Amino acid sequence: MLNVVDTSLKALIKRRRSGHSLEAPFYRDPEIFKADLDIIFGRHWIYVGVEPDVAEPGDAMVIDIGETSVLIARDDDMKVQAFHNVCRHRGARLITDYKATVGNLVCRYHQWTYGLDGKLIFAENMGAGLDMSCHGLKPVHIRSMAGLLFICLDDNPPDDFDVMARAMEPYIAPHDVRNTRIAHQVDLIEKGNWKLTMENNRECYHCSGNHPELTIPLFAYGFGFNPDTADALSLQEAKRYDDLIATSHGRWESCGLPSAEIEHLDDMATGFRTERLPIDRDGQSQTMDTKVACRKLLGHFNDPQLGGLSFWTQPNSWHHFMSDHIVTFSAIPLTPETTLVRTKWLVHKDAVEGEDYDLENLTTVWNATNQQDADLVEIAQKGVASPAYEPGPYSPYTEGLVEKFCSWYLGRLSADLV
Amino acid sequence: MLNVVDTSLKALIKRRRSGHSLEAPFYRDPEIFKADLDIIFGRHWIYVGVEPDVAEPGDAMVIDIGETSVLIARDDDMKVQAFHNVCRHRGARLITDYKATVGNLVCRYHQWTYGLDGKLIFAENMGAGLDMSCHGLKPVHIRSMAGLLFICLDDNPPDDFDVMARAMEPYIAPHDVRNTRIAHQVDLIEKGNWKLTMENNRECYHCSGNHPELTIPLFAYGFGFNPDTADALSLQEAKRYDDLIATSHGRWESCGLPSAEIEHLDDMATGFRTERLPIDRDGQSQTMDTKVACRKLLGHFNDPQLGGLSFWTQPNSWHHFMSDHIVTFSAIPLTPETTLVRTKWLVHKDAVEGEDYDLENLTTVWNATNQQDADLVEIAQKGVASPAYEPGPYSPYTEGLVEKFCSWYLGRLSADLV
Amino acid sequence: MLNVVDTSLKALIKRRRSGHSLEAPFYRDPEIFKADLDIIFGRHWIYVGVEPDVAEPGDAMVIDIGETSVLIARDDDMKVQAFHNVCRHRGARLITDYKATVGNLVCRYHQWTYGLDGKLIFAENMGAGLDMSCHGLKPVHIRSMAGLLFICLDDNPPDDFDVMARAMEPYIAPHDVRNTRIAHQVDLIEKGNWKLTMENNRECYHCSGNHPELTIPLFAYGFGFNPDTADALSLQEAKRYDDLIATSHGRWESCGLPSAEIEHLDDMATGFRTERLPIDRDGQSQTMDTKVACRKLLGHFNDPQLGGLSFWTQPNSWHHFMSDHIVTFSAIPLTPETTLVRTKWLVHKDAVEGEDYDLENLTTVWNATNQQDADLVEIAQKGVASPAYEPGPYSPYTEGLVEKFCSWYLGRLSADLV
Repeated sequence: MLNVVDTSLKALIKRRRSGHSLEAPFYRDPEIFKADLDIIFGRHWIYVGVEPDVAEPGDAMVIDIGETSVLIARDDDMKVQAFHNVCRHRGARLITDYKATVGNLVCRYHQWTYGLDGKLIFAENMGAGLDMSCHGLKPVHIRSMAGLLFICLDDNPPDDFDVMARAMEPYIAPHDVRNTRIAHQVDLIEKGNWKLTMENNRECYHCSGNHPELTIPLFAYGFGFNPDTADALSLQEAKRYDDLIATSHGRWESCGLPSAEIEHLDDMATGFRTERLPIDRDGQSQTMDTKVACRKLLGHFNDPQLGGLSFWTQPNSWHHFMSDHIVTFSAIPLTPETTLVRTKWLVHKDAVEGEDYDLENLTTVWNATNQQDADLVEIAQKGVASPAYEPGPYSPYTEGLVEKFCSWYLGRLSADLV
Repeated sequence: MLNVVDTSLKALIKRRRSGHSLEAPFYRDPEIFKADLDIIFGRHWIYVGVEPDVAEPGDAMVIDIGETSVLIARDDDMKVQAFHNVCRHRGARLITDYKATVGNLVCRYHQWTYGLDGKLIFAENMGAGLDMSCHGLKPVHIRSMAGLLFICLDDNPPDDFDVMARAMEPYIAPHDVRNTRIAHQVDLIEKGNWKLTMENNRECYHCSGNHPELTIPLFAYGFGFNPDTADALSLQEAKRYDDLIATSHGRWESCGLPSAEIEHLDDMATGFRTERLPIDRDGQSQTMDTKVACRKLLGHFNDPQLGGLSFWTQPNSWHHFMSDHIVTFSAIPLTPETTLVRTKWLVHKDAVEGEDYDLENLTTVWNATNQQDADLVEIAQKGVASPAYEPGPYSPYTEGLVEKFCSWYLGRLSADLV
Repeated sequence: MLNVVDTSLKALIKRRRSGHSLEAPFYRDPEIFKADLDIIFGRHWIYVGVEPDVAEPGDAMVIDIGETSVLIARDDDMKVQAFHNVCRHRGARLITDYKATVGNLVCRYHQWTYGLDGKLIFAENMGAGLDMSCHGLKPVHIRSMAGLLFICLDDNPPDDFDVMARAMEPYIAPHDVRNTRIAHQVDLIEKGNWKLTMENNRECYHCSGNHPELTIPLFAYGFGFNPDTADALSLQEAKRYDDLIATSHGRWESCGLPSAEIEHLDDMATGFRTERLPIDRDGQSQTMDTKVACRKLLGHFNDPQLGGLSFWTQPNSWHHFMSDHIVTFSAIPLTPETTLVRTKWLVHKDAVEGEDYDLENLTTVWNATNQQDADLVEIAQKGVASPAYEPGPYSPYTEGLVEKFCSWYLGRLSADLV
């Protein structure tokens, strides 16, 4: 049975027309969804949150990916570890809430008790027959990159995580994620396959028509356009953007902030891309007035006008780091046709709501943008369900990163299909 | 896989015992449901609404059949056309509401723009590589018969539509559907397979026990009974009905209203049946007092006492045309065990609510009847789900048209199974 | 196809590691769930209610097991009979509510009418072609054991029901179920496979950590513990319990109440176990103050201090009979991951609410306990869904009856798999 499915999936991969959207089964078929969970989300580094999610010893967070439940906990030595959230007795889920603070990890069912290092330390009534050392929690690979947490469910994670980490640490470190606090989190369930969520994230062709708030700070031109058909005003705007990139990058690099694009979206297992991008108007932050939302700046920053460091990873995250706050997104598949988009807004850990920042002002742009994107993903999902749907052409000017996402996805899937 | 299913479906069809209800898989099996959508709803003329649904240029209506979404729009030349509701770029659904009024058809996602004739007329940023002429909306066959709209999703629709149209136009035309207005529409989701909805519609054996409102205007006797076991009162009622038919038909025919039965329920791909039937008591309309609900009569009618022209089609519609209003029904499968029954009440386009008609009075009989039928369909669906269910016998007196529906259905299914 | 599944199920059964929880597919796989319904619930005696559910002639009750709907009715001769709840005409469900009181069984659809003995007595309009004698309701096997009702959907029920009945009648009869009344019933849907519900019921290892109310009347020690690791206080409690068992059993047997354990949980098709157990403190009833909840005692009892006669059956019931009231539970699978737990509290038929008993007081212990168990079943179900779950070891001291349940289940499944 598995063979049959693999063959058909292989055929679908093979006949894919490059530069075109994927065929409908990629967005709907339960077997391909299973392959996505097994291969893409099961064998790659998945972004799941930030160190401030588990700031103190005993803090635990639960991440569910498909049917796998992972608990991430900080131990008394401040080390962040990850385990399968499954009691070794009769399998009960250990931590049932999204977040918890615990001394040890105690199963509610029969009180089997594990240390924060996963070791089984107590199991009443089991008798001498039980080898405690064989019944510890099963570990899950976890890495922190400048405070961003990535897990890998496979026993042999891709070894190019370090390549990404070496490249990205200098970009992200100045924003000092570890000394931030989660000011707000929103979990949005988009009614579409996770790849439609990601494809939507990888282009700004749709921005001018759909994101009135985001296009205040964001230059849509930065994400491509067709120069042959652009009118005079557009070309003038594009020129303004190019000039701004040049002067800003120079200024940022001179104060120790690497800014140049790095792009490995489809040539690494742990694909990623980054670039520090100017912000329009006042140039400070992704807010409705383009000024900082939090007056206590991150890290050692004094200058609010740092634009936004954008960072994208395959398969499931994107992030914007500004001088005053960070917005960080993960996409987790729930069903073939629904996806969890989790957004966290981070501010300096000492920033006080109502004093240093206004929550509404901090979150307006991305709350609006997320909802608009969710609506687009929903009409895309409905559309591809039609038997009349056939893959259409990507714009060579504005959808190049969508193509790179698809190409990375298909390459990783093929690589791991037996 | 498909072969296996077809074989089993063929076996089910072959062993069907004529004059008996169908075996349970016909009402529940997801593969047979898929065959119903592909073959029955995918390759036959499906009734979907009326011309007044899209009365003006730019008016559009969306009809979803299975996963196929169709948009029906009237263009500036007053021509009604139908297209797949799928953008040719990345497949997004074009019209997301049931009804809309538009200038052109603009995709919300990236603003690809199509004329009301389906031609792609604008696609920003795509560059010279895009052949606009190859990326128009995909057309869907649509026909209007005296204002009733039928679509066919197949490229080669059954060619006997014209036979039906020639026969039916003289019956329906006097009611002047094109000059009506939709006074009210109700979408009811019945908890049963679409065939149980249709079977229920094709007999009145259940009327006396379940439809106290409908049996005021309707003669249940007209739908058959067993003369051998009927009591004196019943026989007298039946005689009164036969006499009424004879005199009414004569009167109606004499004023240009064809009234005789035409029956092609199981000998045409586009099966249908019609007959003008007397209404009891005041003889005017399907209302609680059997009098017209709308004082502005349809077309050129002066005489309110025209009974009701009934019209049934395979696989999915039934209609009652009276002197003052029309009630028209379509059944669309949603899942193996749910069906959308859409009811529209049409009145003269110049009739004013509150002045010419009272909406409650207009809709009472069929709102009540529809709900009662939905309840019956639900208990039938629950019943056939039991392993103890086995097909039972149809009454030769009262369920002949149910048998014809089943026989048409099985014939059409066999004809198109490879 | 069926062969493939059976083989894989056989393989799963064969490789089961005794003394360990089952592999995940047993709790989740739709094909195994189907086998559970077909084999376990389709070919064994299933506890469904009590004679007082249908106390009077014409009283009917509907029990749904999977897709099979059964109606249980008492006829005019006070005989309780069971039939498939499916009209022989077009299959409509006959009785649509859980309980009804009727003269005859009349199908709502076309008024086909059956006597309480299942015979078809009226079918209008069918004509002479219908052989009434061939269209009676299909019977279902039903047995009453001291007032407890068991049905078997198979044509050849296990013949060891009589063995259980002969053993159990003397234990249960004194509590006089037939002269009770259902004071209260609660239907709780647990979010777990029915076997997790049953496994949870078959051990009290989880009691001290989860059931603060139940452990007031109940001795958790009675369900096992590890003497090697128990502290002095625990050993002392255990001794107190053993002494109480000895003296109580003597006292109860002397007044005609059999009390000794009978255990056939995994050596009979109709597996069961019973024992009369002391109640802690005042020793009377499973209430918060361990005193009787109803002052009108059952049967001919004068002594309220009779402890609790517990009775468990495979696959789906458990019961506690006290001097003043009875609590009786059935578990019915709804989906692979949900189970209906139906609890009935019975009191003397002449007991008056508010006078002889307070409903809140009567139901507190088990309402609380049921909800706590439902929560445990839910975390167990979530846990076994994880790919990281593997069967863990049962405690040899406290989970022996869970092992017997699993062993009975697997044995019965194998026995009936072709």
